[in-house]
Amino acid sequence: MGCFRNVIFPGVSKPIRYEDRGASADKAEVHKAIAGEHPGLFPGAFCKVLPDTLTGSPDHCLLIHADGAGTKSILAYLHWKETGDLSAFRGLAQDSLVMNIDDLACVGVFGPFLLSNTIGRNAKIIPGDAIAEIIGGYRDCIAMFAEQGIVIESGGGETADLGDTVRTLVVDSTLVARATRKQIVSGDRLKPGLAIVGLYSGGRASYETAENSGLGSNGYTMLRHEFLSPHYKTAYPEAYAPEIAGLAYTGKYRMSDTFPGANVTVGQTLLSPTRTYAPILKAAFAQAGDAIAAIFHNTGGGQTKCLRFGSGLTYIKDNLFDPPPAFRALRDNPAMAPRELYRTLNMGHRMEIVCEPSVAEALIHISKSFNVDARIVGRTEPSAGANRLILNDGAAEYTYEL
Amino acid sequence: MGCFRNVIFPGVSKPIRYEDRGASADKAEVHKAIAGEHPGLFPGAFCKVLPDTLTGSPDHCLLIHADGAGTKSILAYLHWKETGDLSAFRGLAQDSLVMNIDDLACVGVFGPFLLSNTIGRNAKIIPGDAIAEIIGGYRDCIAMFAEQGIVIESGGGETADLGDTVRTLVVDSTLVARATRKQIVSGDRLKPGLAIVGLYSGGRASYETAENSGLGSNGYTMLRHEFLSPHYKTAYPEAYAPEIAGLAYTGKYRMSDTFPGANVTVGQTLLSPTRTYAPILKAAFAQAGDAIAAIFHNTGGGQTKCLRFGSGLTYIKDNLFDPPPAFRALRDNPAMAPRELYRTLNMGHRMEIVCEPSVAEALIHISKSFNVDARIVGRTEPSAGANRLILNDGAAEYTYEL
Repeated sequence: MGCFRNVIFPGVSKPIRYEDRGASADKAEVHKAIAGEHPGLFPGAFCKVLPDTLTGSPDHCLLIHADGAGTKSILAYLHWKETGDLSAFRGLAQDSLVMNIDDLACVGVFGPFLLSNTIGRNAKIIPGDAIAEIIGGYRDCIAMFAEQGIVIESGGGETADLGDTVRTLVVDSTLVARATRKQIVSGDRLKPGLAIVGLYSGGRASYETAENSGLGSNGYTMLRHEFLSPHYKTAYPEAYAPEIAGLAYTGKYRMSDTFPGANVTVGQTLLSPTRTYAPILKAAFAQAGDAIAAIFHNTGGGQTKCLRFGSGLTYIKDNLFDPPPAFRALRDNPAMAPRELYRTLNMGHRMEIVCEPSVAEALIHISKSFNVDARIVGRTEPSAGANRLILNDGAAEYTYEL
Repeated sequence: MGCFRNVIFPGVSKPIRYEDRGASADKAEVHKAIAGEHPGLFPGAFCKVLPDTLTGSPDHCLLIHADGAGTKSILAYLHWKETGDLSAFRGLAQDSLVMNIDDLACVGVFGPFLLSNTIGRNAKIIPGDAIAEIIGGYRDCIAMFAEQGIVIESGGGETADLGDTVRTLVVDSTLVARATRKQIVSGDRLKPGLAIVGLYSGGRASYETAENSGLGSNGYTMLRHEFLSPHYKTAYPEAYAPEIAGLAYTGKYRMSDTFPGANVTVGQTLLSPTRTYAPILKAAFAQAGDAIAAIFHNTGGGQTKCLRFGSGLTYIKDNLFDPPPAFRALRDNPAMAPRELYRTLNMGHRMEIVCEPSVAEALIHISKSFNVDARIVGRTEPSAGANRLILNDGAAEYTYEL
């Protein structure tokens, strides 16, 4: 993701940085380690695209993508320990699955998908019934996608008992798809003069069963420790790394509390399953695929994700959504640096479509037809040098550089 | 894997069971959780085989397979901490990759493969340089396979900083292949009257750079704690689950010690990268594919793996290899129950080919041409009821039932 250290920091003087808790927002180390890897057929695309070595077809390509529920699994564990209710484990399947599918949707690929999951657990802590819930959750989620015309074939997976390496639970998924090369959104249409349509992360989509918190499944190391109180540190030492003990569970909430302005508990907010935008994006491509230059899934890197794509661009975002309650609670906390929040979390729209301005309203209409709010949140302009992002939330302006 | 509890236990009276340390040899809980899953096109095959939903071809099938280095990653960590040498992390890539490829080879599939890896780490403990070693290890291993005519295309993967769930390091891989349906070893040729050819787990194969310990990458929860001394418990509390503290690192060795009869250290023995048998099996299929009824990769379940395959069979294994030194050290320890060892570890041959007796010698010759010893270790006979295994190691006879 690059380096932000030369840019003036407008927030509080010494915030807790994401890295202090052992999570990296920009993964500079990892990007360095994989620097020698082949970039694939379309180096500017959101996902790595490979030749179709399975059939040898020169017109096709393959995608293989791995991601997981991250440390959100700990929330399901804490919920179960505090309430005896195992059902929160079900949502982890959706978290793990959608983190992959929504990345793949960003290159215009909507299946059929082949799925495998890898569950690592501490068997002394996580019972078989929890694993059964997760596996049931995969089944539910696959059925939901099927209703939306997105086909996922499950090849099962591996559940490993790894107590000596896994404190509680890790839920990862790997997705595979085959596509035509010409359908891939390669990023080569990125240019100045495009509109950025943001798809709101809150509300309740037509294919969801409850209001979504909008948090998705990234930034959970920060979210857990910022929101949840020291009670969790005392009661569940298995739920954090001892190396970050001084920064663990420093918040003020119990999971049964509510955020200001929210009508569900903190626990429900944090456990809200990751929304998929794939049904909306699939419809958007069907109607206006040629006018879509790029789609960014604002997970790791948050609102700065765009910086890695295209060249010579200034991304201007100056018409952001007022974010859902959990994001507001973070933003309104004077100890949090808004600049850091924007580079960690989606802060209101987890998906953005960079498109010809002429189709922006049609895309907004499509999103709203799925009951997901959407708006033009910004635009692309030229940059004399490397890509930049200028983000103005009405209260302040933040500049990020690649 | 089923239940062994009704069978008379000939070992010591109260051994430490694999499950006591939070690892399950038979994964009964997991098998229960996935009981509702579709068994795939060939329910009797070693791996799940799916319809080819990526191209729709009725003559083809797909395989997606996930596995990892398990808790062997901890050995690489301990080696680095004790010596400052990062190179042991490289071997984890081979462990993680081979645990998949050798399973897929058991259904007669030898690529081309599509690969994705998922690395989870505690960034406060595992530095970026270690991740770079692992990623370099994948590159080395892919090159080694290419030299053997086995093609692996890497789609990269995901490295996640998950200190709150991962104590040290998890290295998982997912492999995908497409095959013709008629090439799949479905298990439907399993019957009484077949020979079982075992491929030795020790020695140095022609494609290996050093003598192999034969341990592979399973049973490492037991192996670490049985072999390594309390020094590791005291010095590296991050290297075991506190829930099993009473059973952690109860052995007598430091990593710099040697086993009786071994010419390398305990650390080198435990870190010996998982051997692949795929080059041998590929050659075996080329020469005698029609006469091969099944191949069993003796990882989880050890020598009892066969019990799950075929029906109405008695597997008799009465001509086992004298195992490599690490296995002998376990077997010669009066505190260990041999019965438990055989159902956890390969104990001398990690791969076995069940074939028409007429081709057994030819297969042994092929294996030896790769400098991997092989022999007829047993045979199949009828069973009046469920599958049985009668294992005779010269010192005692053990019966296992499905």
